[in-house]
Amino acid sequence: MFKRNLTSRILLLVLIVLLGFNAFVFASSQKAPKYVFYFIGDGLGSSQRQAAEYFLQVKTGDNTVKLVMNQFPVAGINTTHSLDSLVTDSAAAGTALATGFKTDNGMIAQLPDGTNVKTLVEAAEEKGMATGIITTMRLTHATPAVFAAHNQSRGNENEIAVDYLDSGVEFFAGGGYRHFVPQNGELKSKRKDDRNLIEEFEKLGYKIFVTENDTEKFRNYKPVGKEKVFAVFTYSHLPYEIDRNDNVPSLAELTQKGIEVLSKYENGFFMMVEGGKIDYASHANDPAGVIHDVLAFDKAIAKAYEFYKQHPEETLIVIIGDHETGGFGLGFGDNYFLKLQELMDVKASVDSIRYKGDREALYKYLAENFGLDDLTDKEKAELERAMDMADAGEKIENGPSWLSPVNAAVAHIVSERANLFWTTYAHTGTAIPMSAIGVGAANFGGFKDNSEIAKTMADLMGFKLTELK
Amino acid sequence: MFKRNLTSRILLLVLIVLLGFNAFVFASSQKAPKYVFYFIGDGLGSSQRQAAEYFLQVKTGDNTVKLVMNQFPVAGINTTHSLDSLVTDSAAAGTALATGFKTDNGMIAQLPDGTNVKTLVEAAEEKGMATGIITTMRLTHATPAVFAAHNQSRGNENEIAVDYLDSGVEFFAGGGYRHFVPQNGELKSKRKDDRNLIEEFEKLGYKIFVTENDTEKFRNYKPVGKEKVFAVFTYSHLPYEIDRNDNVPSLAELTQKGIEVLSKYENGFFMMVEGGKIDYASHANDPAGVIHDVLAFDKAIAKAYEFYKQHPEETLIVIIGDHETGGFGLGFGDNYFLKLQELMDVKASVDSIRYKGDREALYKYLAENFGLDDLTDKEKAELERAMDMADAGEKIENGPSWLSPVNAAVAHIVSERANLFWTTYAHTGTAIPMSAIGVGAANFGGFKDNSEIAKTMADLMGFKLTELK
Repeated sequence: MFKRNLTSRILLLVLIVLLGFNAFVFASSQKAPKYVFYFIGDGLGSSQRQAAEYFLQVKTGDNTVKLVMNQFPVAGINTTHSLDSLVTDSAAAGTALATGFKTDNGMIAQLPDGTNVKTLVEAAEEKGMATGIITTMRLTHATPAVFAAHNQSRGNENEIAVDYLDSGVEFFAGGGYRHFVPQNGELKSKRKDDRNLIEEFEKLGYKIFVTENDTEKFRNYKPVGKEKVFAVFTYSHLPYEIDRNDNVPSLAELTQKGIEVLSKYENGFFMMVEGGKIDYASHANDPAGVIHDVLAFDKAIAKAYEFYKQHPEETLIVIIGDHETGGFGLGFGDNYFLKLQELMDVKASVDSIRYKGDREALYKYLAENFGLDDLTDKEKAELERAMDMADAGEKIENGPSWLSPVNAAVAHIVSERANLFWTTYAHTGTAIPMSAIGVGAANFGGFKDNSEIAKTMADLMGFKLTELK
Repeated sequence: MFKRNLTSRILLLVLIVLLGFNAFVFASSQKAPKYVFYFIGDGLGSSQRQAAEYFLQVKTGDNTVKLVMNQFPVAGINTTHSLDSLVTDSAAAGTALATGFKTDNGMIAQLPDGTNVKTLVEAAEEKGMATGIITTMRLTHATPAVFAAHNQSRGNENEIAVDYLDSGVEFFAGGGYRHFVPQNGELKSKRKDDRNLIEEFEKLGYKIFVTENDTEKFRNYKPVGKEKVFAVFTYSHLPYEIDRNDNVPSLAELTQKGIEVLSKYENGFFMMVEGGKIDYASHANDPAGVIHDVLAFDKAIAKAYEFYKQHPEETLIVIIGDHETGGFGLGFGDNYFLKLQELMDVKASVDSIRYKGDREALYKYLAENFGLDDLTDKEKAELERAMDMADAGEKIENGPSWLSPVNAAVAHIVSERANLFWTTYAHTGTAIPMSAIGVGAANFGGFKDNSEIAKTMADLMGFKLTELK
């Protein structure tokens, strides 16, 4: 076509090389990822992340050990306030993260005026991508719910469960069968009707795994083609990682199985993975509980990171929290050091403590599970006071009704021993860290509002996040 | 030289365009900035920043208002631990930020074995750049000191002051003349010798501004050429912003004057600006004190940002904290909201309270300066208890010796009213946010250790940060 002389041959060669470089530069900034992991640590503030990393360093004696999430190249700082409060709940925060719309606390992918808003999972399904929703909480809890349900109240979990039926989501895994099984059925239920949603999922072609009895079946299950999975292992939430035994899969196992199932679909996938009990442990002001759930969350992230390393040109991983919980401070009193080694002997969550009036049994439980076999007089007095309160049916000052004075006292004794403390049993309004790696990751960096994360993801994926009619 | 035919002419044209693009891509990532601003908020954790932004939004009624620092495109998360503790002090944190070397708490640009390490200011001076050190603290305090002095202990402020004489730093501004004036001189001194460092600076050609008497002279001063400035306005630290009257320049004024002086130098400048009293207010658990000092810090950043907008291709601004202080939690009790409007009536720092046994005078002061004219019975009981302790010479539990029980009680009453609280009077080990804009800013983003910030800056500037012989 062209008459080739030496000059033009050389120029052509240089041109080809440069075009390649330019294509690379553009591609890395503009191409949509085929595989998207959206990790949401519920209650995952800066202190929750850092406590877990430092714990790992103290435990291993290696101060170069890093969380997987702390090795990603892109970081962000995100505000979390909802439409009606500077301190968000998980429903409003989740709605912002899932839809790009701010709403009032308590609402599930719905605006205060009752208008539903499209979620990233719904947009991904529209585009023919496979989707997954994975959590350590009940599947119908706020953070998973905002991705595939719409409701004026997070409390309407029976309705949220029904919404999931026509969500098209290919992989559900978590806890909380109580909202899926019929009242008066074989399994304990919270439903007010006779619908057996498990059976309805099965009729829709889902592979079903229900209760701990199916854990081994789930572990051995290998999808052979494009299959759908609905897995709920527990009546309510999955256990805290620190309390979990092998009867229930870990979040990493759920994530790995999700990858295996969803990667059978040719159009890529969008997967939301929630580390939900970081929040619960923070509500209980339980530092060891927090740390073990952050580490479990990080192991789930490691599974995604392994996948990323096999598909680096097609994968995006975003790690974020929905808000901070507890006002977790990595410092106490007038000290300039932490004593995280105090947490090495803790073997159970604060929530696992069930004081019923038997003081001797409590001391035994604390000695065996919290390393509290050497209580100081002050600590013992604090516990005795808490047991007096519990015996009298009294509640803690400024505390939530569900938290026993005894459990709160143990949480605070363990925290103080480690030179940690808390400002609240609820959420806080501080800004939280975000990490990302992979295709388009740089777009998520910087100081952003949580609603911008969903919008950025939608822009990257070519989704339109809009109000629904 | 080449025989030009049509093909090669077209190819050449395309080539030139592509080369321009490639040069741009490389240049934006690799060019050294001519003007560098290094803003260090002492104690500036995520909550300190966010509380100030939300305060501004509540005050103005405009929830779109953002801090200047929160508008910058690049964000980072930084760990702050020192060599000997997960909870750093400002000397070790500052050394990491100024030199890229981790050291033990208390040490000033020196390793535990006594080896001095080169600072960014020293490296900038070597390269012929002008430098500035600006702070709201004593100029000899830890954070400024680590940039232009070397000492085994931050406490040796008289020695640190002497180090400054041969630092070559062109612009010093802050508080703390007590380490620069001779003992037994006109001005109150902490020196143990008769050296008048102010006079020595003057002999070195510095324009001198000492005490509040020179504030107006400083304000009116306009450098006409390459001039040097040494300005210390107060005996010790500059006042908290909330207590400051017009007798002392603001941090923004100091920064603006620094820009005017240093931009007369043709080889560019490196300027460190510390918002130091954010830390002090956090040590006192004083939320209004924190917020007003963060806002003052942000106004100083605004001055740099104005300069950046005039020199966008040559300027870098990095905003960071050295550690978090106080375990500041934007949440208290079991509530899902903040009440920052409670802080609007606060007109003084907690540190300004001087209880000397006159209870009526204290109540009057609190009513006038803290809006505490409507104490609840519980609050009043807390204050009475604190005054009893103060009268008996008792200290607060787990508290620092310098903090009066009365001042701590007021700090906690004001905090609780706003639904805020604290976990410690000391520093914490949480990771902290970083923001950046300008030439090379992207290099500072991501999850990093504080020592990496200095190294990144050195790489960008072509500095070698090494041990000194």
